[in-house]
Amino acid sequence: MKTRDRILHSSLALFNHEGEPNTTTVDIANELDISPGNLYYHFKGKDVIIAELFDQYEHGITEILKAPIDRPLSVEDNWFYLYVVFEEMYKYRFLYRNLSDLLARYPELGRRFRRLVDLKHAAITAVWRTLSEAAVVSTSDEEAEALVDNMVLLLTYWLNYDHLLHQDRPPALIIHQGVYQLMSMIAPYLGEQQRDFYEQVRNIYRTLIAPAAAK
Amino acid sequence: MKTRDRILHSSLALFNHEGEPNTTTVDIANELDISPGNLYYHFKGKDVIIAELFDQYEHGITEILKAPIDRPLSVEDNWFYLYVVFEEMYKYRFLYRNLSDLLARYPELGRRFRRLVDLKHAAITAVWRTLSEAAVVSTSDEEAEALVDNMVLLLTYWLNYDHLLHQDRPPALIIHQGVYQLMSMIAPYLGEQQRDFYEQVRNIYRTLIAPAAAK
Repeated sequence: MKTRDRILHSSLALFNHEGEPNTTTVDIANELDISPGNLYYHFKGKDVIIAELFDQYEHGITEILKAPIDRPLSVEDNWFYLYVVFEEMYKYRFLYRNLSDLLARYPELGRRFRRLVDLKHAAITAVWRTLSEAAVVSTSDEEAEALVDNMVLLLTYWLNYDHLLHQDRPPALIIHQGVYQLMSMIAPYLGEQQRDFYEQVRNIYRTLIAPAAAK
Repeated sequence: MKTRDRILHSSLALFNHEGEPNTTTVDIANELDISPGNLYYHFKGKDVIIAELFDQYEHGITEILKAPIDRPLSVEDNWFYLYVVFEEMYKYRFLYRNLSDLLARYPELGRRFRRLVDLKHAAITAVWRTLSEAAVVSTSDEEAEALVDNMVLLLTYWLNYDHLLHQDRPPALIIHQGVYQLMSMIAPYLGEQQRDFYEQVRNIYRTLIAPAAAK
């Protein structure tokens, strides 16, 4: 790996584990066993590293979020899709942990973050449309609108909520429960013929969340 | 008002409007037209002011959250109750805006914040139990558990989500929409006889959210 990429890789790990406000460029240099001068040669400060990591995240999550908008998923793939979205967010979770602070320091990020929330909204709406057209779910437009808003909010803040309550749980657990919580929002609207499939998927998630409690 | 209370009052207003990280004790002194030395006489730094404001918030919201646990609300009062909870949170919204950063700086607050989330959970469960016992709603225990979790998450992050998307909207609008989003989570579980009442309340909220769009 090139030094530049190693710096980005270690910075992301430190920001995620120690918190971005608690990590200095000296910490990053120490972690990599390079001199602060060498780090400065590649990045002129922490701000530039954060901007570069945000670019990476924006690129990755945009690709993922566009997928169901460009081409509808199969009914069964929708649940797995939600997993993929959470997984990508989890990789860059430091961005969400300190969102207000980051946006106050980098006002330009605000616009780009809002664009991502809009894209999440469009992706979840596309997922919902697929389920509706397959007669998996049934709602009025008004119900669908409020439901999609609630799902986007959960998608945006789930990682923060889990961190507030449990600090650092294993990622698979955090992400599976996130998907499970999203599924339970959809559940009451599912038609009878899809309930069996849903119950199966839900039990898999429940087994992962609480192995002892699962049937 | 005593100087000490004026300092707290102005600090809260500045933290909420300008963001706590962007507000210094000098800003607070300037706002009140007192000397930094006079402010220091009352509070030995911004940390002490934040701790005092958190105490106020903790005291106020604890009282509110305990109400339905100690004594069940009437069915109709539950919706108004959710409004009161949001209103109290809105008064101290700076605490939620920068939660991760605040918790990193004051680890002791983490435990107290988690206690408040637990209390929110107990309050929402109590609300849910009242609705269930009045046969307003009907769910399995498993459904109720996931629903209450989703409601507590929305209650905790709604103000942040609204701020991320819209910056500063009028408080009545933010809070009403928060209640509306919570109501729409409950809606699919409502029995027929309560749907009319629910639709009426929902229309009031929708009129406030989007006067032009409402019927």
